[in-house]
Amino acid sequence: MKKIKVKALSKEYPVYIGNKIFSSISNLIVEHSLTKNLFVVVDKNVLELHPGCVSAFNKNKFNKINILVFDSSEKNKNSKSVERIYNSLIKNNYGRDSVVIAIGGGITGDIVGFAASTFGRGVQFVQVPTTLLAAVDSSVGGKTGINFGATKNLIGSFYQPDFVLIDTSFLRTLPEEEIICGIGEIIKYAFLSDQKLFDDIKINFKKLFNLNSAVTAKTIETCVRFKAGVVEADETESGLRKILNLGHTFAHAFEVEQNYEIKHGQAVAVGLVCALFLSNQLGFINSRNLDKYLGLPFLFQGKINFESCNVENVFNIMLRDKKSREGKIKFVLLTEPGKLLIDVEATKEQVIRSIEDGVSYFI
Amino acid sequence: MKKIKVKALSKEYPVYIGNKIFSSISNLIVEHSLTKNLFVVVDKNVLELHPGCVSAFNKNKFNKINILVFDSSEKNKNSKSVERIYNSLIKNNYGRDSVVIAIGGGITGDIVGFAASTFGRGVQFVQVPTTLLAAVDSSVGGKTGINFGATKNLIGSFYQPDFVLIDTSFLRTLPEEEIICGIGEIIKYAFLSDQKLFDDIKINFKKLFNLNSAVTAKTIETCVRFKAGVVEADETESGLRKILNLGHTFAHAFEVEQNYEIKHGQAVAVGLVCALFLSNQLGFINSRNLDKYLGLPFLFQGKINFESCNVENVFNIMLRDKKSREGKIKFVLLTEPGKLLIDVEATKEQVIRSIEDGVSYFI
Repeated sequence: MKKIKVKALSKEYPVYIGNKIFSSISNLIVEHSLTKNLFVVVDKNVLELHPGCVSAFNKNKFNKINILVFDSSEKNKNSKSVERIYNSLIKNNYGRDSVVIAIGGGITGDIVGFAASTFGRGVQFVQVPTTLLAAVDSSVGGKTGINFGATKNLIGSFYQPDFVLIDTSFLRTLPEEEIICGIGEIIKYAFLSDQKLFDDIKINFKKLFNLNSAVTAKTIETCVRFKAGVVEADETESGLRKILNLGHTFAHAFEVEQNYEIKHGQAVAVGLVCALFLSNQLGFINSRNLDKYLGLPFLFQGKINFESCNVENVFNIMLRDKKSREGKIKFVLLTEPGKLLIDVEATKEQVIRSIEDGVSYFI
Repeated sequence: MKKIKVKALSKEYPVYIGNKIFSSISNLIVEHSLTKNLFVVVDKNVLELHPGCVSAFNKNKFNKINILVFDSSEKNKNSKSVERIYNSLIKNNYGRDSVVIAIGGGITGDIVGFAASTFGRGVQFVQVPTTLLAAVDSSVGGKTGINFGATKNLIGSFYQPDFVLIDTSFLRTLPEEEIICGIGEIIKYAFLSDQKLFDDIKINFKKLFNLNSAVTAKTIETCVRFKAGVVEADETESGLRKILNLGHTFAHAFEVEQNYEIKHGQAVAVGLVCALFLSNQLGFINSRNLDKYLGLPFLFQGKINFESCNVENVFNIMLRDKKSREGKIKFVLLTEPGKLLIDVEATKEQVIRSIEDGVSYFI
């Protein structure tokens, strides 16, 4: 079991990574001196595929354990679902001395984290990501959130977990589209980190896609370490942390425009392509390098299907993004892997063209 | 204009106190390098009594200013009102680069603070308390919250403002019951601080009640300084900060049981009396001192009216309080002014008797 420390300003906590390590969860809760009142929110699919994830808790070590099953989807990522968690906590007499445990993908982690951060002004919180995407990205760093109105993750908080447990055995049951999602986010790290990771991921793409144990574990570890470093430097996204949004301004808008028919990690892959095209248009990447960099996300061609896409709509949704400033969309762009530019502005025409360019490769 | 620094772990910020200082707000926003997108939520009553509080903003210094009028009441202190704030922010194109300013009493500050802490995972926030209670207590220290289900302030966050501006000229228009509320909370500080403050407040009770300028300003300053010290030592209420809840476990239950017909500060005054009786029952205060200490809250007799009170109900509501642990109510009690005990347990019979004793003096 690997242990990676995240030293955020508000809290220091470890991320445990390993195969078949979920059975250690009771011991870890005790080791971390968390309270003995456990409230577990588990994704419905995960519970069906891994019924052991609920029975693994050693009841003798705790005062009480309640399980809430959550039917996770972008459409359920709303205040209604948060209130359902609150109500279940109240009904079962949970107070401030509670630990809330999220077992599931990014949506489950985000929504349960938001509930944990606001119930009684914040209770203890443990993340058990069960998807590749959540393992490499959303479970680490303390971002919680729900969708509100037409804006993704508009409402949320920065709230670090007490620990994160990544058991790669959960990944075995992922459907192909979920693996694509995870790799979409991993490719983002390839662009954020350096040429070496970029090359590694390109070479290992097939192995990752087939969830080769060694490659998957190593890649998760690399991504978590990278993200931990960014979060340590800038927990609340006032500067450096913005780089983690590479491709995401496009991606969030695609998700909303497609009424969440496209999944987050898939939208990120398309969004990265758009960001590369925009970087090229604005002169940050020359055409030769553009082709080289596109080579990685293009490995997804044929695996992500847009039925159609209203580019004007996508642009208008981007304007409403919570990261937009004074009616201007701010982009994260790049010159080469590891060299990022934040808060870059572009004209409407440039943005529209980059969306058209990006989307055309996936429709 | 006095300036008191609050050095919380998550943020350092000043509390400005003075008479007729609200007109400085535009300059203070600029001085603090806050963003130029201002969103003001103002209590309906305050706006009617002080229309200048909205026109005081110097429009030339900012990009945009929107005003939302909030009809503050415990019954409106809910997620619906929070969503109204979110929707108005969205409609007027506010992003993360916004500063939300709350002008009003404790309810307004709590709810607007919660909205500010969760919109876009947190935007800038300024507190302008307009009641005595909010000035001495809720506007400082970063607690935000809304009521949920039958529990007061169940949902919320710890989120420090960028600055607090206390203009005592707002207090001139307070109705008598609001002054009582503020003094209820001030008396709590008398018990938390030391015998000197206890004696000062007892001697100056009438002057405070008449809002004598010098006494009021000095008392607010003393309370804010005391609270700042507590918050600096324990921002998220894991230990010392619990003392600020003296009388509050009783008070919150009275408010819910009375369906919020009794106001918070009044309930605190009654709650302090119950806490004194419970402290006596458990042997922490002898009967002679009990009489001496009761002398201060008893100055309120005839000013707070319960119509009737179901003591059993009050007890059951206390069990649901978010500060309760494992089905046990935890009390803050005292041996003398400045000497507090936290996390004290008591039997149901003892609690019921202390409620009966306390309430009997106000019915």
